[in-house]
Amino acid sequence: MTSVKRKGILERLDAGEVVIGDGGYVLQLERRGYVKAGHWTPEAAVEHPEAVRQLHREFLRAGADVMQTFTFYSCDDKLDISGNAPNITCQQINEVACDIAREVANEGGALVCAGVSQTGVYKDRSSESEVKAIVKKQLDVFLRKDVDFLIAEYFAHVEEAVWAVEVLVTSGKPVASTLCISPKGDIDRVCPAECAVRLVKAGAKIVGVNCHVDPTQCLNTVKQMKEGLDTAGLRAHLMIQPLGFHCPDCTSAGYIGLPEFPFALESRVVNRWDVHKYAREAYTAGIRYIGGCCGFEPYHIRALAEELAPERGFLPPASQKHGLWGSALEGSSKPYVKARASRSHWENLKPASGRPLCPSMSIPDA
Amino acid sequence: MTSVKRKGILERLDAGEVVIGDGGYVLQLERRGYVKAGHWTPEAAVEHPEAVRQLHREFLRAGADVMQTFTFYSCDDKLDISGNAPNITCQQINEVACDIAREVANEGGALVCAGVSQTGVYKDRSSESEVKAIVKKQLDVFLRKDVDFLIAEYFAHVEEAVWAVEVLVTSGKPVASTLCISPKGDIDRVCPAECAVRLVKAGAKIVGVNCHVDPTQCLNTVKQMKEGLDTAGLRAHLMIQPLGFHCPDCTSAGYIGLPEFPFALESRVVNRWDVHKYAREAYTAGIRYIGGCCGFEPYHIRALAEELAPERGFLPPASQKHGLWGSALEGSSKPYVKARASRSHWENLKPASGRPLCPSMSIPDA
Amino acid sequence: MTSVKRKGILERLDAGEVVIGDGGYVLQLERRGYVKAGHWTPEAAVEHPEAVRQLHREFLRAGADVMQTFTFYSCDDKLDISGNAPNITCQQINEVACDIAREVANEGGALVCAGVSQTGVYKDRSSESEVKAIVKKQLDVFLRKDVDFLIAEYFAHVEEAVWAVEVLVTSGKPVASTLCISPKGDIDRVCPAECAVRLVKAGAKIVGVNCHVDPTQCLNTVKQMKEGLDTAGLRAHLMIQPLGFHCPDCTSAGYIGLPEFPFALESRVVNRWDVHKYAREAYTAGIRYIGGCCGFEPYHIRALAEELAPERGFLPPASQKHGLWGSALEGSSKPYVKARASRSHWENLKPASGRPLCPSMSIPDA
Amino acid sequence: MTSVKRKGILERLDAGEVVIGDGGYVLQLERRGYVKAGHWTPEAAVEHPEAVRQLHREFLRAGADVMQTFTFYSCDDKLDISGNAPNITCQQINEVACDIAREVANEGGALVCAGVSQTGVYKDRSSESEVKAIVKKQLDVFLRKDVDFLIAEYFAHVEEAVWAVEVLVTSGKPVASTLCISPKGDIDRVCPAECAVRLVKAGAKIVGVNCHVDPTQCLNTVKQMKEGLDTAGLRAHLMIQPLGFHCPDCTSAGYIGLPEFPFALESRVVNRWDVHKYAREAYTAGIRYIGGCCGFEPYHIRALAEELAPERGFLPPASQKHGLWGSALEGSSKPYVKARASRSHWENLKPASGRPLCPSMSIPDA
Repeated sequence: MTSVKRKGILERLDAGEVVIGDGGYVLQLERRGYVKAGHWTPEAAVEHPEAVRQLHREFLRAGADVMQTFTFYSCDDKLDISGNAPNITCQQINEVACDIAREVANEGGALVCAGVSQTGVYKDRSSESEVKAIVKKQLDVFLRKDVDFLIAEYFAHVEEAVWAVEVLVTSGKPVASTLCISPKGDIDRVCPAECAVRLVKAGAKIVGVNCHVDPTQCLNTVKQMKEGLDTAGLRAHLMIQPLGFHCPDCTSAGYIGLPEFPFALESRVVNRWDVHKYAREAYTAGIRYIGGCCGFEPYHIRALAEELAPERGFLPPASQKHGLWGSALEGSSKPYVKARASRSHWENLKPASGRPLCPSMSIPDA
Repeated sequence: MTSVKRKGILERLDAGEVVIGDGGYVLQLERRGYVKAGHWTPEAAVEHPEAVRQLHREFLRAGADVMQTFTFYSCDDKLDISGNAPNITCQQINEVACDIAREVANEGGALVCAGVSQTGVYKDRSSESEVKAIVKKQLDVFLRKDVDFLIAEYFAHVEEAVWAVEVLVTSGKPVASTLCISPKGDIDRVCPAECAVRLVKAGAKIVGVNCHVDPTQCLNTVKQMKEGLDTAGLRAHLMIQPLGFHCPDCTSAGYIGLPEFPFALESRVVNRWDVHKYAREAYTAGIRYIGGCCGFEPYHIRALAEELAPERGFLPPASQKHGLWGSALEGSSKPYVKARASRSHWENLKPASGRPLCPSMSIPDA
Repeated sequence: MTSVKRKGILERLDAGEVVIGDGGYVLQLERRGYVKAGHWTPEAAVEHPEAVRQLHREFLRAGADVMQTFTFYSCDDKLDISGNAPNITCQQINEVACDIAREVANEGGALVCAGVSQTGVYKDRSSESEVKAIVKKQLDVFLRKDVDFLIAEYFAHVEEAVWAVEVLVTSGKPVASTLCISPKGDIDRVCPAECAVRLVKAGAKIVGVNCHVDPTQCLNTVKQMKEGLDTAGLRAHLMIQPLGFHCPDCTSAGYIGLPEFPFALESRVVNRWDVHKYAREAYTAGIRYIGGCCGFEPYHIRALAEELAPERGFLPPASQKHGLWGSALEGSSKPYVKARASRSHWENLKPASGRPLCPSMSIPDA
Repeated sequence: MTSVKRKGILERLDAGEVVIGDGGYVLQLERRGYVKAGHWTPEAAVEHPEAVRQLHREFLRAGADVMQTFTFYSCDDKLDISGNAPNITCQQINEVACDIAREVANEGGALVCAGVSQTGVYKDRSSESEVKAIVKKQLDVFLRKDVDFLIAEYFAHVEEAVWAVEVLVTSGKPVASTLCISPKGDIDRVCPAECAVRLVKAGAKIVGVNCHVDPTQCLNTVKQMKEGLDTAGLRAHLMIQPLGFHCPDCTSAGYIGLPEFPFALESRVVNRWDVHKYAREAYTAGIRYIGGCCGFEPYHIRALAEELAPERGFLPPASQKHGLWGSALEGSSKPYVKARASRSHWENLKPASGRPLCPSMSIPDA
């Protein structure tokens, strides 16, 4: 399948458009029964393509402008360790994942973005060639499948991300890069401002953060990145794809350090109104590529698209099945439900956990 | 499509087997972008059959023995009011929904169950013929599609449920019936014990509760039903399909009365370990048809199947992507994550809400 | 010291007056350093009379119409077991406690009430004479000191309370009696309605509850007592002296069953606005003897007196140092503090615990 | 009354002794009915000396080595504005307060410390002479009463504190100084390290913090002060008197900015086990003058003395009425209470608030 001709990612961002990203695949597909927690490898693309295709479609319907290929941790070292799929190779996964993403992207006006992430071999400076070889191998497939742009995401060491960017830019495709770091910086204590500078100098045209911490903390980090770039006189587009979980109790290890990770995070899931607030704050901070990571389900992406509909000029297809700010409750025969058809109800609500034996914060294990 | 020959629902239950039900369709498809909250009608069966089929498949993979047709609120009065799908009739929806359920059921060894629910016309004794006509109309389609058994579910007045059962039993198919009531009884204050007696006398072979309140409260109600039947010297199988939300603060109006309904329930979602506990308690209480309603996602159904695997003798397909009690974390490279590969960790965890500004209970609006 | 001539307790209640009780002595004196938790015996009356006198005075200033003698658990068996005061006898304690209460009562217009409580010897019917002998011994001192009226309080078995009342009424003094029971009834499952009937039949002119559970639950219980008396055609005054702790998680064992008892109850302490609400509800329920038990400090008693000032026609002395509903904040130089000089601020506030690692309810040990 | 000859404050600290401070007077006396919230002036010393004396005695019994004179906000401008006591002068209050403190101090081996606090006239540099005049007037009384040492406490601007210290040191008495600041520094954003340096240079021999924020935050601030002094090569003793309230949600305005201040702070009160932890951490951080401020009741001070008994070599008098770590529960007849006679029970307990409708944190008004 080849790409339909449409405006590229940089054309869109350069024109000042808001780009809505998609949500999280691995945690959602774990809940649907197709991904094994722990190693999180994406063999479902080969084993159950219909399940992966369906989730892509839901994000597309919800308003996502980008389909990220379901290739997370699809590098040989990770797949081998997982033992999840002994007869499947990463090359197979990556090829099929690109095809699925393209198929669904073509159903709307979306772009296909293929990603690489932190490897298992990174140690220090000495591992550069090893890391780059792994990235290169993935890139070869992505280029053969002619994806629209590339992302180096979910890196905890900016140094490793820089290496990945250096490989990806050789393709001539636009390159984005996001780190999974807290407002305090990367694992090596490089501050967000400096991280952004290094990524842009390496060739990334879009920089930001993804995963590990919640929208509030991610916004903090990207704002620091912006300041760093401004101070350095560098220009790049800003991107944010936070967790869909509230975790103010996280340390720099992110939500992986919480005792609830990964099997008891339900009570932390953000709701659609939290997403409205996050979308508005991200936009106001000057970020134009706005999506989600683990915990972001299709309806969260729809909330992004609905909050930013005034700026974008249109609502996504899935809004046909959603009244803005609860307005679909107006037809309820129960007066107390009808009374909730109101923006102020949902904006001011402090939702109860229903768990009186549970606290509001945990002590992280890490 | 016709049914493959397999053991019927009563044969299974009479033989002492555990039957795992499926989870909730409307809320989950709302989140996926296919159902509109408020009226909750199931036109997605016609508009987006692939989305409905996929959710059925996920429940099947998770271990469900029954595929309930996605026909909730599919009666003309509800669909007209909703305005969600002006060019689609309930007959169309019901037909397609039966076909989809059958198609997926045949992929495993599952049964197809078609359901009717409370109507909008019920008032009092005078509405009997009107209610029965609506039920009859739905039943005609279900019989034409040769479903395996029938359910009258989500009734708040036992009187209306009895009428529905009276219609359904004319088919000769096995009939189940569940009420959406609290431990205090139905809306007219008929106690659970008496409700069960009336349903069984009307011809239901399987009785219990679904929706509206949480597993703890549903268990309480079904236990009362059991006592009522025992005292009356009646025999029937017991069934339970509770909410997948913690709501100890509910009044008899159920979760619909909570200010979080339906758009801010995230923090109340039960986790897989809560489901293990619920499954065990339901089994111990003598209930053998055990499923879920709104809030139950595929992984919750898998948790039912995993908890009851010793009794059932097998694990469901989706357990290939899940380590029992977190065991898949044993391979983690992070020692603090590895330490969570333990039943005691998950059983004893009191998961934090991550929301220090929110309470643990709400004051219901109703 | 002899009593000043003033209106007796029954004259006041018969005339429809509101009688404000005092608060809790043992827990407050534990915090001040004079009572040992565990056995809770009142030797401080002899060892540190100035400390006991001061607390009495604070309750008097706060509006209490009754000074209860600090003689809780002052019977020989309890004092011996405690080992707290090897050289002090109960007779000494009881005498001094009566003197202190009288001294302070005379500083205002208050009455002195002397109390007996559950004994350590109660088992069953066979222990009647033993229990009565202990009560009689305490009563002898109280009569010698000419207290104004008597109370049999903090009984968990209504049977034992009846015996105590039977002894106390022989004195000719008015007798009140309160049980430390939950809305479910006494330890032997005698329901509150029946408990009230038995106490009144034994001769108590004032009946109700004290201690063990919170204001909400105590109100529930006294309402049941009232219904029981009404149904039986009996007349008595109603009395309530609940805990000053929120404990909706209590079982029938009361707050003693909570893991926080007795050294970590701080976060449960009711505030003055909770007391306003409680006072109003008690009054509306027809209760006219309204006080507090453990956890009620002087400012809680003042809140009772302030809420019921319209009915009583006056404010207590300590209100000279308190603005109604926060009005004293009007003079604040900080605008955000000044804004709190408002009834609606305090009535609607949901005070935070400041403890994000803690839950809102506990699982009782008992 | 004159002072008994005993070791002075600097002799004790220079010898490495731990000095236990006393707790909070104004909030506790507000609850007892003698201080009016809002203006918080100390006319009770004159109006009700027995109430002030009693609270002093309780702190002494609990182990306090210092009696701070009850002279908070006893400067003419504050007293006039309050209108609480039209016929009483500050001079009267200060004299009586010194006498009461001395009387009680002599009952044990305690020292008398007289304090001055922030004035209402401080604006900027131009107000120096006015501020100093107010301090001088108070100091004159303190010298006449021959207090043992002086403290300039509860200053939000280090500049004003420095002026106060400059006045106090003219007396030749040892001078301590504590600021009511957060870890971020004083109102003018002077960091804690620099604040400490300025106070020591002005002549304070003991420096630290009091009030406004909780023990955790106060410890943070004093550690910064220590680092500042070490870096500057200065030597001084460290002092800490934090709030007895949990308030992790405070901004730099401290607990005054919380919506619960001052009438709904109950749920935030620290318990005795929190105090043990705080005492140990303060000691470990090198702080030797350890006390409390608002919210610290006598039993909290006893907990300080009990935690540091190994270092001090003795227990306070009030420990005769307290078993260490709950040991007094060993004699309980209830097995589940007896089981709480254990250090691990109390150290690990996460006490519930009993308030399921309330959150764990507030949004500060300021």
